[in-house]
Amino acid sequence: MTINATADPRGFLRALFDAAVARAQPARVMAGALPPPPERGRTVVVGAGKAAGAMAAAVDALWPAQAPLSGLVVTRYGHALPGQLERPGRIAVTEAAHPVPDAAGRRATEAIIERVRGLGPDDLVLALISGGGSALLWQPAPGLTPEDKQAINRALLASGAGIDEMNCVRKHLSGIKGGRLAALCAPARVVTLLISDVPGDDPAVIASGPTVPDATTGAQALAICERHGITLPPAAREALADGRCETPKPGASVFAGHEWHLVATPQLSLEAAAEAARAAGVTAHILGDAIEGESRTVGQVHAAIARAVARRGQPFGRPCVILSGGETTVTVRNPQGRGGRATEFLLGCAIALQGEPGVHVLAADTDGIDGVQDNAGAVVTPDTLARASAAGLKPAELLARNEAYPFFAALGDLVVTGPTHTNVNDFRAMLVL
Amino acid sequence: MTINATADPRGFLRALFDAAVARAQPARVMAGALPPPPERGRTVVVGAGKAAGAMAAAVDALWPAQAPLSGLVVTRYGHALPGQLERPGRIAVTEAAHPVPDAAGRRATEAIIERVRGLGPDDLVLALISGGGSALLWQPAPGLTPEDKQAINRALLASGAGIDEMNCVRKHLSGIKGGRLAALCAPARVVTLLISDVPGDDPAVIASGPTVPDATTGAQALAICERHGITLPPAAREALADGRCETPKPGASVFAGHEWHLVATPQLSLEAAAEAARAAGVTAHILGDAIEGESRTVGQVHAAIARAVARRGQPFGRPCVILSGGETTVTVRNPQGRGGRATEFLLGCAIALQGEPGVHVLAADTDGIDGVQDNAGAVVTPDTLARASAAGLKPAELLARNEAYPFFAALGDLVVTGPTHTNVNDFRAMLVL
Repeated sequence: MTINATADPRGFLRALFDAAVARAQPARVMAGALPPPPERGRTVVVGAGKAAGAMAAAVDALWPAQAPLSGLVVTRYGHALPGQLERPGRIAVTEAAHPVPDAAGRRATEAIIERVRGLGPDDLVLALISGGGSALLWQPAPGLTPEDKQAINRALLASGAGIDEMNCVRKHLSGIKGGRLAALCAPARVVTLLISDVPGDDPAVIASGPTVPDATTGAQALAICERHGITLPPAAREALADGRCETPKPGASVFAGHEWHLVATPQLSLEAAAEAARAAGVTAHILGDAIEGESRTVGQVHAAIARAVARRGQPFGRPCVILSGGETTVTVRNPQGRGGRATEFLLGCAIALQGEPGVHVLAADTDGIDGVQDNAGAVVTPDTLARASAAGLKPAELLARNEAYPFFAALGDLVVTGPTHTNVNDFRAMLVL
Repeated sequence: MTINATADPRGFLRALFDAAVARAQPARVMAGALPPPPERGRTVVVGAGKAAGAMAAAVDALWPAQAPLSGLVVTRYGHALPGQLERPGRIAVTEAAHPVPDAAGRRATEAIIERVRGLGPDDLVLALISGGGSALLWQPAPGLTPEDKQAINRALLASGAGIDEMNCVRKHLSGIKGGRLAALCAPARVVTLLISDVPGDDPAVIASGPTVPDATTGAQALAICERHGITLPPAAREALADGRCETPKPGASVFAGHEWHLVATPQLSLEAAAEAARAAGVTAHILGDAIEGESRTVGQVHAAIARAVARRGQPFGRPCVILSGGETTVTVRNPQGRGGRATEFLLGCAIALQGEPGVHVLAADTDGIDGVQDNAGAVVTPDTLARASAAGLKPAELLARNEAYPFFAALGDLVVTGPTHTNVNDFRAMLVL
């Protein structure tokens, strides 16, 4: 059933979001990417990320009943499927903390390493990797304590190093990231199924690529630490210098016969939403699948584009829907503020739209949780500011205090889905009638 | 002569910028908007803004030699045409401070008021209004001292009031803004020619609309001050409360027979650039003529769109050029930093582009001055980051210190034009080959 965009703009935008999330649902998209069961060996499933529970359940459902299957995956607290922790089927599921790692994640990592130890060349490892996996799957490199790792991580975050530089150091000081999990699986063959939540969809970046070759070197990691004045514990410094911390490189024999498949990406979900829009008779334009930047300013720029469409029919004729993906950023100005990327984007957008007639906007996180609130996102309508004014809400003041969540909550304009058990990052749709 | 975009991307982008600036040049665009000289009376020219000198010169050149013409306009220091201060022709030109008003602006305002005093119903006033005029043309309302006005202005800026709210208060505490200059011209007829540098192109907003009806009221101004806890001097409070400070309203008899003409706008200049691109065989898309927000983040979003075009042919097929206008904002993190809106936009853009092949970007201010430096803007090329790295320049560190100007200066990538004597705000063009 398609929804009439003019008659029900909210319902229309919600249908597009649902189409985007559905395109990233493991149960719907993993069948085509699964290899056949090995002829002789057994199959061990490992994995980590916000979608790990749903991906494990999908493998269990799709895998032949008579083929040996076992394994363990770790997902974020609250992101296992309902009942899955108690009745996990053939693949065990555990939960741990995200975004700040905890001991449960460390224990899960050790248990996963235990599961792949001693496999033979006839065995198959299915690695199920999705966003959030980097925090859930963690183990310090040999010789480093968890405290060392935390101290280095804090120093990295404070150093002004870029995300690529931080990942290079992290991979080399980890016992599991940067292809090391694949090395631990040898001589078994590894097939990795990935759900991307990163700009560019590089498998080496998603969850820090535990089963993916790493092209960076320990010498580079050392140079990055020196460049940014990061003091390393002597053990870490020596290990980076003498090559003991080296990650497995592209072309290394340990990856022979391995495969990597992106089963869901932001772009594929945006295309699914565009298809749903077209089915409802509305032209769709995808602005980009990797738009980053401070959420409120990204909202302001989106608003300016929507107004250009509404007022001048540029750069797109109307009616149309403009879609975008990617991960924006919220700079915390008020630590007590309540609001995630989606609601900050929307409040910045609503203020800039100034009640532009005919423009409706939905923004939501495809994992179903915008920040730490109970909502996936929210909706802006042409009368958002008027309704806010009538309710005594001050948009600019609330945005200044990071209080975008209470703004949309008070208007009754939240989009609430609960955890969706997948994650292809932010989703934004602007309908210009 | 058209330029081949593939063979000379920089020359191509510069040609588009030049086309945008040319479309806003008073000498080229004012002829069609000028009324005929009055049959019996004389014509007095008044005006203010960054383009005031060039607009006055254009009127002088276009006005019949035998028709009586005199007047005075005020422009920003350094923005009079070469030689114009010494040999002004029939219309005198003076200069004053922008963006912080000075005594020269106050004196110019008094002299302009003197020029329109005692005109008759057969006389014509030509008002030449462009961006920057609000700071150049200022006079406190009767009963207020310049110090009162400055104190209220500081309190407004610190209060968190929106730009519309600030303008409402300013217009009601001014002796010249918000249509008052038109009232001073009565009973002469006023024709206003405007060059817009504001989103939406509202004549009442450009230079605070000295000759344009004002729909806001003194009671609203008072309510805004109360809402934001701004203490007014007793004289100002009384004048706002008893209606003495009221601005002339839409439909007031003082505006009978008046005309307002937008002779140049950001949109018209973007369309001229698009036309120049098409003449060179490149498809052009205008993203918006009123894009606002923190410059570096607006650059990041533009980069993401350019990468989507380069990698996926969405939302536009390539090759193409994407144009945008509007006024972005630079938050000053380092008071010693050198860099304007254009170079901050470009550095944010360059970092996010990560050397994307085939993407060239030019950003520049159409008034020829990006912030307080000697450049109009700069250019980003696919090898910007590689050349910066070879030169030992650290893009992220320089951006963190507001040092975007030295970054592009060191690369030899500045765009330098000097004052262009017009102003239709920011211009940005991204060529994706």
